[in-house]
Amino acid sequence: MPTVESAMHKLDETRRRIGALDEAAMSAAKERQAALTKPPGSLGRLEELSIQMAGIQGTARPAVSAKVIFTMAGDHGVVQEGVSAYPQAVTAQMVRNFVRGGAAINVLARHAGARVVVVDMGVAADLEPDPGIVVQKIGRGTRNLVQGPAMSRDEAIRSIEAGMGVFEAELAKGMDIAATGDMGIGNTTPSAAVTAALTGLPVETVTGRGTGIDDARFAAKVRAIAEGLAVNRPDPTDSLDVLAKVGGFEIGGIAGVILAGAAHRVAVVIDGFVSGAAALVATVLEPRVRQFLIAGHMSTEPGHRVALEQMGLTPLLDLGMRLGEGTGAALAMGIVEAAVGALNGMATFSEAGVSETL
Amino acid sequence: MPTVESAMHKLDETRRRIGALDEAAMSAAKERQAALTKPPGSLGRLEELSIQMAGIQGTARPAVSAKVIFTMAGDHGVVQEGVSAYPQAVTAQMVRNFVRGGAAINVLARHAGARVVVVDMGVAADLEPDPGIVVQKIGRGTRNLVQGPAMSRDEAIRSIEAGMGVFEAELAKGMDIAATGDMGIGNTTPSAAVTAALTGLPVETVTGRGTGIDDARFAAKVRAIAEGLAVNRPDPTDSLDVLAKVGGFEIGGIAGVILAGAAHRVAVVIDGFVSGAAALVATVLEPRVRQFLIAGHMSTEPGHRVALEQMGLTPLLDLGMRLGEGTGAALAMGIVEAAVGALNGMATFSEAGVSETL
Repeated sequence: MPTVESAMHKLDETRRRIGALDEAAMSAAKERQAALTKPPGSLGRLEELSIQMAGIQGTARPAVSAKVIFTMAGDHGVVQEGVSAYPQAVTAQMVRNFVRGGAAINVLARHAGARVVVVDMGVAADLEPDPGIVVQKIGRGTRNLVQGPAMSRDEAIRSIEAGMGVFEAELAKGMDIAATGDMGIGNTTPSAAVTAALTGLPVETVTGRGTGIDDARFAAKVRAIAEGLAVNRPDPTDSLDVLAKVGGFEIGGIAGVILAGAAHRVAVVIDGFVSGAAALVATVLEPRVRQFLIAGHMSTEPGHRVALEQMGLTPLLDLGMRLGEGTGAALAMGIVEAAVGALNGMATFSEAGVSETL
Repeated sequence: MPTVESAMHKLDETRRRIGALDEAAMSAAKERQAALTKPPGSLGRLEELSIQMAGIQGTARPAVSAKVIFTMAGDHGVVQEGVSAYPQAVTAQMVRNFVRGGAAINVLARHAGARVVVVDMGVAADLEPDPGIVVQKIGRGTRNLVQGPAMSRDEAIRSIEAGMGVFEAELAKGMDIAATGDMGIGNTTPSAAVTAALTGLPVETVTGRGTGIDDARFAAKVRAIAEGLAVNRPDPTDSLDVLAKVGGFEIGGIAGVILAGAAHRVAVVIDGFVSGAAALVATVLEPRVRQFLIAGHMSTEPGHRVALEQMGLTPLLDLGMRLGEGTGAALAMGIVEAAVGALNGMATFSEAGVSETL
């Protein structure tokens, strides 16, 4: 295992590599949008997306062909507090479901033409080895954040760097756009804790019913988050501290994918609440990350809205979804592909012989 | 040309054929949704869509494979009033662009895996014959609605029945889902007039800037619609009267596609403001149509919101689009396909060996 210092090296190097959007490419894309056979601006957010993609990829003709969804799994000690409607074993069971292709993310990824990379960031069970699972286990579930830090600072850094490593391995196989997703019974609890810590908002404001818990479990969840924050006192200006004390391994892994995406100039479509919490961790660490992000959808989890607001991101879709896995991001990837398709594939006024104005 | 009576026969027959959603199929789909490996309800509107599709198609396993977008074109005499930023010739030019595959709808249809059926419902020019254009010309543009009825009642009925005929011809080639779209310089003016007449709302509330007109043209547009309604006094309880007096040929054609879709139990995804006005015509004529409709997106045209509200439809997407052609509906078709894909393709808890609850 790498030491804290060697670990920090990769994280710092990646952060330093993150630059700005390519203004020249964005101007060229904007100019082309104005010449395409439609009233200027009439494709709304599709035009904005295509220009952002141009700025990210540094070309007026961006590509959205090779699409990768990173679905990162981890378990959470805080489930001891009775915060979820499902037993912890479901995390491992769902990882197997991902590998067999039976989960929602598999269906929606097929629909989007994306490949799913399933990552064990810290499932509490020893999963049967499978070529379809990338094993980056930082631990067998986090510790219960009510009783102390969920993980050490070293583990937090290693979870982020593991996400970066997984991203880079996939980049080598070809990737035009990435999306993030999560699986982890109980993981809306650390996500709410991270969101509360990094936005400064009250626990009640950022906590929702996750998979659909009843009033008693909801009360236990709010209590656990409040206690966890009181016990651990994470430093809101230090998102590594927040991730370590009240986060999760898959949240760190997703933050790593996001940071690596920005560093390698690959757009990252973030999914719902858990990915949003990871994006908060990444953007507090390095604000320039923000420009490389696309908010896939608005989850029904109340904390997701405030996380997106804090990052200045407007979700593409709002379909009442709250499943995670990357499902909202997978749907949104299709919209991004269509947006770039319009930029690249439409005829200009002069090509089509269409009059521009009166 | 058919007489008014023979025409009404087809319209009445189609209306009579429109039934209710299949409750048994919807129950079966709902039951299956509850058994799939996800928290119940967590796919939000995707679940609702899949259940609606089951009810429309009368099977717990609906299909969204063969997809057809009907893009209907027509011209409008009211352009004499200076209501558009583009010359009327653009309608014909854009029809040629559709046939050559260079327009936004072509790109987005390819992305959705849909075929585009381009229909000349009443373009003011004689288009060069092309196998890619279905000619159902009711007239060479409507008359100026400020000076009297845009068309006769007979023409209104024939425009609807032409749309039905085009739908049925395509149905014979295979169609699981339909979408509507429009092309017609000036056509947000009749759409606003139809929407004002059928919702009873003030002209100012339902009128927008279409392709992006300046203040002077906007004032002329509001004035033209108000005068058109004052001169023609359409009967708000008789949507054929409204269509005839202040509508358009492509609006009638789209209403025909919608009515035929409902009659043949094919879901129809409606696009923006012009399709919304056509849907108002169809639903006032036969309220049971509503259940067969899916509102593809929220146009930035203010009248579209009120039209959808009156029909009780919630748009799937809200991407700041205002292009027409069927572009918003094409994107939304992809969401519907994904929704049905999840219903059909996901594993159940028992198939996947995943625990259901604690």
